[in-house]
Amino acid sequence: MTDTVQIVLARRPAGDVTADCFREETVDLGAPAEGQILIRSRYLSLDPYMRPRMTELRSYTPPFELDKPLTGGSVGEVVESRNPKFAKGDVVMGMLNWATHTLHDGRGLRRIDPSVAPLSAHLGVLGMPSFTAWYGMKHICKPNAGETVFVSAATGAVGQVAGQLAKLAGARTVGCAGGEEKCAWAVREAGYDACFDHKAERDAGAVLDTLCPQGIDADFENVGGRIFHAVFERMNNFGRIAFCGAISEYQDQTPMAGPTKMFTIVQRRLTIQGFIVSDHVALMGDFVNEVGALVKSGQLKARETVVDGLGKAPSAFMGLLRGENFGKLVVKVA
Amino acid sequence: MTDTVQIVLARRPAGDVTADCFREETVDLGAPAEGQILIRSRYLSLDPYMRPRMTELRSYTPPFELDKPLTGGSVGEVVESRNPKFAKGDVVMGMLNWATHTLHDGRGLRRIDPSVAPLSAHLGVLGMPSFTAWYGMKHICKPNAGETVFVSAATGAVGQVAGQLAKLAGARTVGCAGGEEKCAWAVREAGYDACFDHKAERDAGAVLDTLCPQGIDADFENVGGRIFHAVFERMNNFGRIAFCGAISEYQDQTPMAGPTKMFTIVQRRLTIQGFIVSDHVALMGDFVNEVGALVKSGQLKARETVVDGLGKAPSAFMGLLRGENFGKLVVKVA
Repeated sequence: MTDTVQIVLARRPAGDVTADCFREETVDLGAPAEGQILIRSRYLSLDPYMRPRMTELRSYTPPFELDKPLTGGSVGEVVESRNPKFAKGDVVMGMLNWATHTLHDGRGLRRIDPSVAPLSAHLGVLGMPSFTAWYGMKHICKPNAGETVFVSAATGAVGQVAGQLAKLAGARTVGCAGGEEKCAWAVREAGYDACFDHKAERDAGAVLDTLCPQGIDADFENVGGRIFHAVFERMNNFGRIAFCGAISEYQDQTPMAGPTKMFTIVQRRLTIQGFIVSDHVALMGDFVNEVGALVKSGQLKARETVVDGLGKAPSAFMGLLRGENFGKLVVKVA
Repeated sequence: MTDTVQIVLARRPAGDVTADCFREETVDLGAPAEGQILIRSRYLSLDPYMRPRMTELRSYTPPFELDKPLTGGSVGEVVESRNPKFAKGDVVMGMLNWATHTLHDGRGLRRIDPSVAPLSAHLGVLGMPSFTAWYGMKHICKPNAGETVFVSAATGAVGQVAGQLAKLAGARTVGCAGGEEKCAWAVREAGYDACFDHKAERDAGAVLDTLCPQGIDADFENVGGRIFHAVFERMNNFGRIAFCGAISEYQDQTPMAGPTKMFTIVQRRLTIQGFIVSDHVALMGDFVNEVGALVKSGQLKARETVVDGLGKAPSAFMGLLRGENFGKLVVKVA
């Protein structure tokens, strides 16, 4: 008998996610059946894409189910196994419940070597957010030396890696983030040429004109909304927009209109490409080789925020949607 | 001495193009200087892209100059040559003035064989509009058999070819056009599976739901605006949008907002690519081979509207912007 604490979706949010969308409960998972393993979660990743999953949208991942635990990328330890592919003590990564323990059939789980890096890094700079940044930058933005790249959410889990990869490619790299502290870190630690505080600047266009005097050749877009519209207007001929997320829209109840003058796409021969990194798992090996080496050599830095205790996951997630985290947000479950 | 009738840009339009934007005048061009040729225009192509050029926009082609003749793709005959590359009697294609005669240095002109096809075809199904359709369909839309392709302005100079190429690729091909006559032609002659009259249908979304029950995999976009927004909402995963023009925006004085929910681009992993065919002249040979063969074999049909007399070019152009032409619009100059 395993007493498991888990967080379930109590109701779907309408607009802002509120505390009553979640319910913490304690259940007895029972013992693993044949083929199953029992995993104790160590770290849970909180990511913006979870917000659309809370709603019944036609989205790329099925919506979370009501009264069932939410799930998320996690690192955990096998505590009991009736699956020949996993042994007690294995450290694994994959989609687990927002819970202290998950019963799992093992599909989609990957064993990781805990000596390579801190466990939480597998959810950040060596994990999905970083893979997302790498794919979008390398396969869509494709910055050339001397070009200008813009990264919205410059210090987020994805953005911080995207910006550093752009910089390593020799591009002038400009971002925006929420608050002075993040902007200062972006420039000082992540090597951005400039980063502006979107909370303080109301006229994004004017700031972009100053910071990107040669226009913008590639945009790594995580946010959408008014700053995206200002970026869109300033794209250069043959510009590329890697559309990775639109966090500014996730809690909007009235759908937001896109940028004006869609003809700009023709005039400037823009390519706008939406992507989801799970479509590109075949490239995971390339990513691990390239980015792993950059992390090892210290050329790629990563900032994370660790929240202590599963019970804080809901409030931390609500904070994430308000941009309160700094870098990759993970919950230390146990 | 050559008395030339030409049409100059008298003023830049604000909103709808009006007759007073043009002025017809008779000038004496004089004799060709060394290196020049004098060309008598036979056919002048009228195309939507000319509208942005009438305004002082940052666009892909420089704006027309005030009090100078407008220019356009034309077929003409060399009547006098002081350029060793061209002889009297040569039939040439290229950018000429909206005029009975143009003095030209020969750069960018191409000699054509008048026995291959009617002269006006070089401005339509064997020319730039058709090349545009071919490029966008083949290199961006890339329809697979069984997919659904939507073509706005289905019977326009570009759209009619785009739709037929989609159909030849085995796609369900749906379009819209202005008026019953065009829609009937699209289905009967151009082989569209369905074509709806955007002037009669106010609820484009409902019509698209009926005509494209499997959603839309590729959109060849010439128009923009409300129908584009409805198409955008119905794009399938991994959908492609070849953005070729946005005629609905050209005369707008208040910029039009883009489609709502830009996050759709991420959710459905859409690729939206703007293009201008003049960037791809290196592929002109491939186009001529492929499309020339389809025209010759009768697999590709083309409809054109011929307006008789240069003096009618302004009113025909204004009609084009209102969608009054049917197929490729050309002016028979002489």
